[in-house]
Amino acid sequence: MRVIAPTFVFAAAAFAGGCAQTESPEGALLIESQGAFAVGGQVSGDPAEASLHCDHGVVEYQIPPRARAVSLLMWHSASAVAWQRRWDGGEGFQSIFLRRGYPVYIWDGPRVGRANWGCVETTYTPNARADQQNFVAWRFGLTYPNWFDDVQFPKDDGEAWNQAMRARYQEFDSVANAQLESDAAAALADRIGPTVALTNSAGGLRALLTALKSDNIKGIVAYENVGWVYPEGEGPNVPEGRFGPVEVPQDEFRKLARVPIQVVWGDNIDASDVYRARLEESRRFVDIVNKYGGQAEVLLLPDAGLKGNTHLPFADLNNVAVADLLSEFLAKHGLDRR
Amino acid sequence: MRVIAPTFVFAAAAFAGGCAQTESPEGALLIESQGAFAVGGQVSGDPAEASLHCDHGVVEYQIPPRARAVSLLMWHSASAVAWQRRWDGGEGFQSIFLRRGYPVYIWDGPRVGRANWGCVETTYTPNARADQQNFVAWRFGLTYPNWFDDVQFPKDDGEAWNQAMRARYQEFDSVANAQLESDAAAALADRIGPTVALTNSAGGLRALLTALKSDNIKGIVAYENVGWVYPEGEGPNVPEGRFGPVEVPQDEFRKLARVPIQVVWGDNIDASDVYRARLEESRRFVDIVNKYGGQAEVLLLPDAGLKGNTHLPFADLNNVAVADLLSEFLAKHGLDRR
Repeated sequence: MRVIAPTFVFAAAAFAGGCAQTESPEGALLIESQGAFAVGGQVSGDPAEASLHCDHGVVEYQIPPRARAVSLLMWHSASAVAWQRRWDGGEGFQSIFLRRGYPVYIWDGPRVGRANWGCVETTYTPNARADQQNFVAWRFGLTYPNWFDDVQFPKDDGEAWNQAMRARYQEFDSVANAQLESDAAAALADRIGPTVALTNSAGGLRALLTALKSDNIKGIVAYENVGWVYPEGEGPNVPEGRFGPVEVPQDEFRKLARVPIQVVWGDNIDASDVYRARLEESRRFVDIVNKYGGQAEVLLLPDAGLKGNTHLPFADLNNVAVADLLSEFLAKHGLDRR
Repeated sequence: MRVIAPTFVFAAAAFAGGCAQTESPEGALLIESQGAFAVGGQVSGDPAEASLHCDHGVVEYQIPPRARAVSLLMWHSASAVAWQRRWDGGEGFQSIFLRRGYPVYIWDGPRVGRANWGCVETTYTPNARADQQNFVAWRFGLTYPNWFDDVQFPKDDGEAWNQAMRARYQEFDSVANAQLESDAAAALADRIGPTVALTNSAGGLRALLTALKSDNIKGIVAYENVGWVYPEGEGPNVPEGRFGPVEVPQDEFRKLARVPIQVVWGDNIDASDVYRARLEESRRFVDIVNKYGGQAEVLLLPDAGLKGNTHLPFADLNNVAVADLLSEFLAKHGLDRR
């Protein structure tokens, strides 16, 4: 008889709502090695007298046995938790892709989360309307609290809502910070070897900048990306905001043409002026990078038969189907080799 | 033939310095389920109009197959990373105790790390002398940069030093915050069931407060604890500082007598006035809780034959020997049952 400890009952049954997916068809996860470390950053001051190690990133890693050669670097703009669990408590992309043989890295960039010993003073100010803004920004519905009918979120599950609203931490959205984060991420990529960046929202701009700084970024799958890099003179000619745009010399920009890029969008885009514009902007970017010889594409999940996905498709109820599309992308570009 | 991916070579050989311990005698880690979630906290404002979920904690969990009944809750005051890796890159307590069959939870309390969406504004101010203060506070040596001869730290390994100096994040040391953190941790314990809190430094005060708020704290192993709870009138009669002391009514205090408590100290205590006083204070606490019928003890690692341990014995080079002593404690108190 199999003994089930109280905590396991909690994790698999009570918390995950008894969803079949939590019980892997393959049984237990196998981990060859795991841990965490800091990378990049500065040493401010004089180490002989008074100094501070700061502005590094912190990464957690898990490596399965007989791992594939290219790892996945999961880069949130919201929270690491969204890569670690589905909103209903089911497995997140972290575990799903470990089962599929990929080394998985989960990244807190400089000043973010567990890497918050920055070199400069920073202030956190609570956002009194965060819940309402999240609801709309994550496309749970067009207006709070009116859910889209087909949304891939367990909308009657109060605990799932509670988890989603607590699944963020301070982001530091500015181009200067995106550059700082990509400096540290490039140091990470140089250290861990070939990797594909999986990003969400503002994480995509950071990964694009990282691909300019390290040849080890072998692919970018940007879920609902906000913020783009353009060749000088070819950007949308708008003032720089929190998410760019960033213009770089053409020779720099050509580096992005070497990197397979997939920009993934969920459902109900048409309902939102903001997201229609973001989708259009992503098509414009894809056209430009492909004009330079790139391998970029836009994937609309509804076109692949997936309905109701939100701004964080990898945490949605149908995240296994979303994962299957990622596996296809990785295979198509030879990024699944062992 | 076993295929070793580049990333694994990095993790096991380059990063861990080829230490035999990284290669587990038992092969790959087995994980039945893993993930992360938020727990506790408040909802500020009016959810109908403008609200923010805040002041929760965030926990990562891993549960091995056929897990033991009592989990381990790893509660840093410095950084989760110190539970996840030894300074030389070898396995941390997280993996060591998963191999030994314990469910493992790694905790960021409210406002800390990945739980930094607090309900109030907070400011991070860089500490220009952090490296030098860490060196002394973590008892790498008596004065910076003069290492203790026998220190269980790879003192000639520049990368280990780099990792150690980046293995912290904002702590929010005050009694008010320790209460806030223990509120959320009590909600966690109520949710995950019986657990033993492993703490470091200021984490110990937080765990003691949590044991007053949840019956599921079944033991506390406090590595180099700073900050204590006393019965009213029996404290050291000093002003409340960042680490207490906290006085509570006798009836409250008696709850601690139900909890097996081990306070663990490393080596070279005698060399430091500060640490000699902290050791004495811990003996005083142990005497008081035992006077109330408790099961508390002080463990000096040198008395158990371990030399050179620092302020973070669980991350030291001999952390497997430190883990063995923890296993003994858990067995002695019946906390290792399946």
